Amino acid sequence: MKIRKQDLEPIAEGAAFLGTGGGGDPYIGRLVAEALFERYGEPEMIEASELDDDANVYISAMMGAPTVLVEKIIGGPELDLAISALEKYTGRQADAILPAEMGGCNSMLPLAVAAMRGLPVINADGMGRAFPELQMVSFNVHGVSASPMSMANEHGESIIINARDSHETENKARQLIIGMGGSAAISCYPMSGAKVKQTAIPGTLSLAKGIGESLSQGRKQNKPIDNLVDYLAGTKYYSQARRLFSGKIESISNRVEGGFTLGECHIRGIGEKSQQILTVEFQNENLIARLDGQLIAMVPDLICLVDTDTGTPITTEALKYGQRLCVIAANVPPIMRSEKALNIWGPRAFGYDFDFTPIEKL
Amino acid sequence: MKIRKQDLEPIAEGAAFLGTGGGGDPYIGRLVAEALFERYGEPEMIEASELDDDANVYISAMMGAPTVLVEKIIGGPELDLAISALEKYTGRQADAILPAEMGGCNSMLPLAVAAMRGLPVINADGMGRAFPELQMVSFNVHGVSASPMSMANEHGESIIINARDSHETENKARQLIIGMGGSAAISCYPMSGAKVKQTAIPGTLSLAKGIGESLSQGRKQNKPIDNLVDYLAGTKYYSQARRLFSGKIESISNRVEGGFTLGECHIRGIGEKSQQILTVEFQNENLIARLDGQLIAMVPDLICLVDTDTGTPITTEALKYGQRLCVIAANVPPIMRSEKALNIWGPRAFGYDFDFTPIEKL
Repeated sequence: MKIRKQDLEPIAEGAAFLGTGGGGDPYIGRLVAEALFERYGEPEMIEASELDDDANVYISAMMGAPTVLVEKIIGGPELDLAISALEKYTGRQADAILPAEMGGCNSMLPLAVAAMRGLPVINADGMGRAFPELQMVSFNVHGVSASPMSMANEHGESIIINARDSHETENKARQLIIGMGGSAAISCYPMSGAKVKQTAIPGTLSLAKGIGESLSQGRKQNKPIDNLVDYLAGTKYYSQARRLFSGKIESISNRVEGGFTLGECHIRGIGEKSQQILTVEFQNENLIARLDGQLIAMVPDLICLVDTDTGTPITTEALKYGQRLCVIAANVPPIMRSEKALNIWGPRAFGYDFDFTPIEKL
Repeated sequence: MKIRKQDLEPIAEGAAFLGTGGGGDPYIGRLVAEALFERYGEPEMIEASELDDDANVYISAMMGAPTVLVEKIIGGPELDLAISALEKYTGRQADAILPAEMGGCNSMLPLAVAAMRGLPVINADGMGRAFPELQMVSFNVHGVSASPMSMANEHGESIIINARDSHETENKARQLIIGMGGSAAISCYPMSGAKVKQTAIPGTLSLAKGIGESLSQGRKQNKPIDNLVDYLAGTKYYSQARRLFSGKIESISNRVEGGFTLGECHIRGIGEKSQQILTVEFQNENLIARLDGQLIAMVPDLICLVDTDTGTPITTEALKYGQRLCVIAANVPPIMRSEKALNIWGPRAFGYDFDFTPIEKL
């Protein structure tokens, strides 16, 4: 199935929702993908199950703090260079492109590279959401290494990292991000078709598109958020989706540190709930929601901020004082809540001193 | 001509002298080289002029703050891995090994790798001394790029950097040094035999050996420093060699910052000169000498600290309160004082706001 140019808008919006605040500005990613679709044609989207077991699959993504990403114009050349640098290093040509995560920018760039290369993009990713660090993908949970990994920038510079594990690959890449200009195009987790079938989370590009379409249809009926929550609850992954809170941003603090955007956002309720405060803490992505200090949702479950009127997902770097928004939470697929998985992206992996509790139990 | 095991001691000592405080502990480098000579045999040393024009020449060195280097045991595997990672990347097997600099550790490691590989080592280097940054070599002055460059560590991790110029290669490598464990084995400036003939400084390994031998012969006559200065003055490169000052270390300040050992050392004169203070400022290597505030020698000329009694060169990380030492200065070859060269390693390249003045004019 071709991904058409008009599919980019719903996919970008749905992925921005799944991105839980991270993954970069969906608008920028969409502009890049649109331009490259026009130039090179629309790419084919295939299911992971259609891959040959010995196909060579490469990931394409941008790495860096989203607040820096929006300041940079992302061109195609560095995305292409990241793939070719890794191809040259492994000695294997790419047969298909795989998204690492669903997030505004990082759902679009794999489509852009697939178009440039005339390669299919796989309807799957490594988390069905966005996460701030490289080792936080299902590929790593199931033993695929992030190394060898490539990084490339707009100056035609490239780096190959061959570290002992995925976490060390992340550490080394993160040290280089500032020197690469604050963000870089990357490729990592080079793997076979067989490995993709074993380790990727299938169907997530279609799901992003469905989420985007549920919002645009809902807008026509003036109920985008109701429509969105209904759609999510009907999917195989997000059956526990719910509204957590509605209110207005009272304060935001954020800083760029070690290549991440870190901070928190305080949302005050409206009307009879005006004494209540919901706090969302983020590290690129939203990690924790507390209502008057009480935990009500936590990573890896989805905590998504959307505009109260339009349902538009709001990324971390776009949060503004006075914004009216609705907080939506959803469970993640069971594969993302296994003990092995929670070691990599549960609350403790982000420095919190408590274990994961699913939203349906909070 | 074979480099014999018994040559290692004078070469290491002579290179430590030329290292002007930098290049790491010569004793550690010598231990590594001795062990690898015993295991793999003694390597051949050849002149740059003997190289085939299309030979593939690779540099071998350690990068990092010397104060960290002495804390780590340097094994052979990471040195070998740095070369093989670069060979794999360029697709060209090494035909010969070239030292980057003359310095305690970095004069020994190329010999060690040459032994491991059964390859010849070239009697030449990129500066005839030691410098703290990768772009500070004659190869770069004459247009050879440091990239592609490899880094490797004792965990079997490797990195390939392909940056737009030698200075950017240095910046990226330096960012990675801490994550690689404080120091790393490197290979860079991969070049042809023809390029080595055009850009390397010939004869520097022999020269280091001559310096080491002049010290050990001088010790037998109880005049190691006189013998050393006489020997230097008789070489084609260091005709202006002279004693600058003798005294005792009154204070030292140093810190490890950004992968470098930075600081200064104050030396008080003895006897009738006890009112005089000579200050040496260093960044891994000794850069500037001031006598009572007045400049008397500056980079790239050599500023070397040796023990007053034995003439043993003292590296930056080994400076100690109360040590009695003699400061010796020497000119560098004219090729190192050209305008193009001074842009890369003159005083301004190290952040000083004055131009280079040769020691013979100070």
